[in-house]
Amino acid sequence: MVTRKDVAERAGVSVAVVSYVMNNKTNVKETTRNKVLAVIQELDYRPNLVARSMKTKKTQQLAVLVNNLGNPFEAGILISLERSAMERGYFLFFQKFQPQQEESLKSLFAGRVDGIILLGQSLAMTTIEYFQQQGIPVISIMEPSSNEKGIVPFLDIDWASAMKQLFVHLKSRGYRSIAYLTAGQQMSSQHYEVRNRALIHAAGEEDIQLDELIEVDSCNFETAYRHLVAKWTSQSDFSYQALLCVNDLTAAGAVAACKQLGISVPERLAIVGCEDILMSSQTSPTITTIHYPRLAIGEATLERMLALIQGQAVKNEILKNELVVREST
Amino acid sequence: MVTRKDVAERAGVSVAVVSYVMNNKTNVKETTRNKVLAVIQELDYRPNLVARSMKTKKTQQLAVLVNNLGNPFEAGILISLERSAMERGYFLFFQKFQPQQEESLKSLFAGRVDGIILLGQSLAMTTIEYFQQQGIPVISIMEPSSNEKGIVPFLDIDWASAMKQLFVHLKSRGYRSIAYLTAGQQMSSQHYEVRNRALIHAAGEEDIQLDELIEVDSCNFETAYRHLVAKWTSQSDFSYQALLCVNDLTAAGAVAACKQLGISVPERLAIVGCEDILMSSQTSPTITTIHYPRLAIGEATLERMLALIQGQAVKNEILKNELVVREST
Repeated sequence: MVTRKDVAERAGVSVAVVSYVMNNKTNVKETTRNKVLAVIQELDYRPNLVARSMKTKKTQQLAVLVNNLGNPFEAGILISLERSAMERGYFLFFQKFQPQQEESLKSLFAGRVDGIILLGQSLAMTTIEYFQQQGIPVISIMEPSSNEKGIVPFLDIDWASAMKQLFVHLKSRGYRSIAYLTAGQQMSSQHYEVRNRALIHAAGEEDIQLDELIEVDSCNFETAYRHLVAKWTSQSDFSYQALLCVNDLTAAGAVAACKQLGISVPERLAIVGCEDILMSSQTSPTITTIHYPRLAIGEATLERMLALIQGQAVKNEILKNELVVREST
Repeated sequence: MVTRKDVAERAGVSVAVVSYVMNNKTNVKETTRNKVLAVIQELDYRPNLVARSMKTKKTQQLAVLVNNLGNPFEAGILISLERSAMERGYFLFFQKFQPQQEESLKSLFAGRVDGIILLGQSLAMTTIEYFQQQGIPVISIMEPSSNEKGIVPFLDIDWASAMKQLFVHLKSRGYRSIAYLTAGQQMSSQHYEVRNRALIHAAGEEDIQLDELIEVDSCNFETAYRHLVAKWTSQSDFSYQALLCVNDLTAAGAVAACKQLGISVPERLAIVGCEDILMSSQTSPTITTIHYPRLAIGEATLERMLALIQGQAVKNEILKNELVVREST
């Protein structure tokens, strides 16, 4: 880690002068000032990190990197995280970012947070390693689909078992052929890929026919609704008996699309979601879904994060899920 | 500073296409994609926050203090704020806090944010003055009910006019006597007080009888649902013809309570919300509500915040609302 002293030595000034420059004091010559600023950039000196660690090693702050601000599913987990953090005297803040902003996270977070919680987000290996070198542990809510695996511990439900349970239910109601609505391949929502894989695996095991794959650009209500209305308007008929949606928002969009087009649910088409957000219990018909233990996972994640901060090892953890059968199947 | 717009112009594409490329969306042709990537490199378009904050003393970070993480109403505003911030190269982070944590905000934010946006939150006068002395402006989404008034500029709809519009509608349907469900006095949700005052004022003007005030501990679905089921179970009858709820989540809870107890909506009781969240269009019956311009208010707030950061004066702003009439009235 670069210190103020390193900057002073390289710039050929005293440590005090470095402090003056950093605090925008006027008692420094313009040429000296420019020299110090150049060295700060050259050495990638992050003053907040140093200032922080001079006072205390810990900030009592945790960052939560979120993928989706608009899904009540994520919001429910955030509420649980926030309550648990407050009880333990931690501040939690939430930040959304785009892949190309990832580099900026380093300067934003270094020295400012004690840990980082990924909520349906993904970081490059180099970024994770950077934070780990800084002593900032990273944990993930929901299994990361690729790069962080094995490096970042995660908490999730067993999606393969949840999907199996769902298919057993569908078969018991006579549905054997399904369509699956999910996010298009290039979407930066890797946690859906875990569900996709679990679905394909479970469909094979339970002898359920995956009749059609419906890909949408964004897993929200409006996108699913519009996509399905357009699709079913142009398509004379479809053979699948049930539509499984990657989350509840899209399932609600599917219910609305069926209502719009006069497709009876569940008689002509059964509809199923994943997550169990509040709205799924209030639509007409109400929606059968996989209940995700939002409260429990928020609490457990915070506990594991505090263990990581204290230098303890943390294993991946699988929480219990539940199939909630409602009117749509 | 290079903006997304500059990249779009140079590449001869729309700003949206630049966003698609940056987000790895698949709906862009390979040639277009390569062109945009080349321009991004050519113009060196990347928010280099460290370099920038050294030059300008600005952090390019804004804090949003939120009151409620669980209401899709606030989430919709956050999404709009976040999009606008990203387009202008700002980072946004969201923080919930309790009144007794307010003092900690000073050390958390000083020197780390360029501005603070209150979203249904409230700060003590001393805290606001502290931030203003630090050159950190504060702006509020929704009118603050008390202390910040006149100090903190706000953006909101005209609640008195919205309530009036609502009462004119209720009268046209024959409803003249209402109950009002809102947050109990001790709740730290001052923005509801603005709605309360507007309601009382408009009821007087439109000669609507406020038959009963129903106070709940928390303005969420579950609390309202339980409160009303208990109340209407123990109460043999009630005289009001319509129930107006301070937000949509509680209105949805009221619809569910009526369904549970066999109270027909709108025949025996009309139900109305405020805010217009997605769920209100999907319940059965769907809920009449006051539409709050979430997208527009997020964009306008960010614009005003940037003006404040540049030292410009900003006035309070009233945005247009709309009455959305649905099946529940």
